[in-house]
Amino acid sequence: MDFQKLAMRRHKELRGKISLALKDSLDTRDKLSTYYTPGVAAVSDYVARHPAEAREYTWLNNCVAVISDGSAVLGLGDIGPYGALPVMEGKAMLFKHFANIDAVPIVLDVHSADDIVAAVCAIAPSFGGINLEDIAAPICFEVEERVKAALDIPVMHDDQHGTAIVVLAGLINAMEVTGRKLADCRIVTVGAGAAGTAIIKLLYSYAQPEILAVDSKGIVCPKRADLNAEKKKLLDFTNPRQVSGSLEDALKNADIFIGVSKAGLLSAAMVKTMAKDPIIFAMANPTPEIMPDIAKKAGAAIVATGRSDFPNQVNNALAFPGIFRGALDNTIHDITDRHKIATAEVIAELVEELSPECIIPSVLDARLVPAIARVIN
Amino acid sequence: MDFQKLAMRRHKELRGKISLALKDSLDTRDKLSTYYTPGVAAVSDYVARHPAEAREYTWLNNCVAVISDGSAVLGLGDIGPYGALPVMEGKAMLFKHFANIDAVPIVLDVHSADDIVAAVCAIAPSFGGINLEDIAAPICFEVEERVKAALDIPVMHDDQHGTAIVVLAGLINAMEVTGRKLADCRIVTVGAGAAGTAIIKLLYSYAQPEILAVDSKGIVCPKRADLNAEKKKLLDFTNPRQVSGSLEDALKNADIFIGVSKAGLLSAAMVKTMAKDPIIFAMANPTPEIMPDIAKKAGAAIVATGRSDFPNQVNNALAFPGIFRGALDNTIHDITDRHKIATAEVIAELVEELSPECIIPSVLDARLVPAIARVIN
Repeated sequence: MDFQKLAMRRHKELRGKISLALKDSLDTRDKLSTYYTPGVAAVSDYVARHPAEAREYTWLNNCVAVISDGSAVLGLGDIGPYGALPVMEGKAMLFKHFANIDAVPIVLDVHSADDIVAAVCAIAPSFGGINLEDIAAPICFEVEERVKAALDIPVMHDDQHGTAIVVLAGLINAMEVTGRKLADCRIVTVGAGAAGTAIIKLLYSYAQPEILAVDSKGIVCPKRADLNAEKKKLLDFTNPRQVSGSLEDALKNADIFIGVSKAGLLSAAMVKTMAKDPIIFAMANPTPEIMPDIAKKAGAAIVATGRSDFPNQVNNALAFPGIFRGALDNTIHDITDRHKIATAEVIAELVEELSPECIIPSVLDARLVPAIARVIN
Repeated sequence: MDFQKLAMRRHKELRGKISLALKDSLDTRDKLSTYYTPGVAAVSDYVARHPAEAREYTWLNNCVAVISDGSAVLGLGDIGPYGALPVMEGKAMLFKHFANIDAVPIVLDVHSADDIVAAVCAIAPSFGGINLEDIAAPICFEVEERVKAALDIPVMHDDQHGTAIVVLAGLINAMEVTGRKLADCRIVTVGAGAAGTAIIKLLYSYAQPEILAVDSKGIVCPKRADLNAEKKKLLDFTNPRQVSGSLEDALKNADIFIGVSKAGLLSAAMVKTMAKDPIIFAMANPTPEIMPDIAKKAGAAIVATGRSDFPNQVNNALAFPGIFRGALDNTIHDITDRHKIATAEVIAELVEELSPECIIPSVLDARLVPAIARVIN
């Protein structure tokens, strides 16, 4: 099916995918007086004096903002707030459909870290949680860190942590299938943007495996003079033997390839130089770093991609609905590494019959949200 | 009925009065691929290249933000963003119920004019219109002016203009009932906050009557050394004969009293000094400047208040739903005095049998929104 064509038609027909609903009708004068003036004055007065109870009297207990400045939208790049809005409305649909969360798309007309942080903090009392979305690296790291520090509601940049959590879930099961331990694996990651950086940090936090980060200039190593601050920080989690070299050098005898980079970057020849039964997560969108059939033919034991038309789809929607459902229900102020690892473990456990073609559950598995929500506590 | 008690109970039961609804379900993989990735990429790409068409593919065509910093909430004053939220959710209900507009409550944790303007402009691409609400004078004037100048979507501070429009509508009919012309009337306004200032400007724009503005220090006149910038500006619209004195002085032979001040400010004795058949708009909330029965006994021909339990309720909800409905449907970039006056005339016309007890239609009159929307063009 041509989803792009269908999407254009359906979006134009619907003129927006979401709308507001009322929890009670306003069809009598008494209801007007209860939900608006004069009755609501008592509620406002009470909430002003007990702000921690605001969530009991308003939709804060179930409301998450999906906020983007449109600087890194899908594979389209920096397309601005209007371009981002259809994606944010789509994300709001996912929140509602999968987790019954009322999500509000907010697109920003500001783009510096200072201005994004100021805007997000200014509107924060309107929401019970904040999902940052499609903000470009390296600004996304500073924005998330500062917003988390400033606010006492759960904040998560999904492009970073949603992807990292599902990658970890997939690797936990890939270890089982191939009889390995993650702590003993040699991992090569390519792409040091939002997702790549978060994957490195979460895998390190989980098992301290040996990781080599590779960018367009080769292995990230202390010798290199061209590293920006964010890439320098990666050295805290990667390259313990301080090796340098190319992607080809990095891949020799590596157990795991994790790509969040670009189409066709990984060749069959490179896969053949990896350790026996290598594991390939080729998540470039829409075209993976290597197509699954080619990787398999070159010896890959397991291949995962970002696509729904191949086995083992790494899809953020496996993680974020349950994480925010749990954070709202359990009044969690901060989403931590402990929560992310627990979520990955829950996702991994939900695969009942593990096989090379099935290390990640379906995004439509209804057990996901309640099971994840339970461990966000 | 004790609406305050009922409101506390119902708000706690509902835990928020609004929620998000989806215009289509997400129950198949094909719909996921249409409304989210990969299909949505085509829509985002198109909208990014044609931002003026964003409203055709997103909810921008029907979505208004209701934004407050919580600095002047109902009669409660500066109670902050959490205290404001129940009122903003209530306002969102009114938008949906009366005009089928999807309104999003946004409460701000910033309070200077600069910071409010920055926050509102930063999130503006998320909405098709902006209803500013419950922002204290004098900051509200600067905020509205700057936001209107910065954005090309309709912006209205409802506490100012909603009230002013309905007052004008009521006065148009009061003129008819008492056989006067507004241009020939002497008007005294008390309270120079958001509503009082907007009422003065709109009445002046409509008919240039003689208006005296009165505050706690007496008549606003050029002699006074204590006037802030906003009150000095009122002199452009008021006090052509440059008189000074007290409220009592101002009221002698006045035709119209307009109060947006405080309970009990107007005595029966003062009403008796006014011109024959005076018109009293006593809109202090919840207790008017003078109770209708006392005003009537003192000779008032017509009394209006802000309350639903007396005749002639001046209720913003008569105006704003139709104004934003029209502004969204007709792609109006700016709500002007012409729109406000046209709205007042439409509201006035909808009263079929004029009488001293009926100069303003019911807020439940279903003809209001379509009739007003038609003139916002």
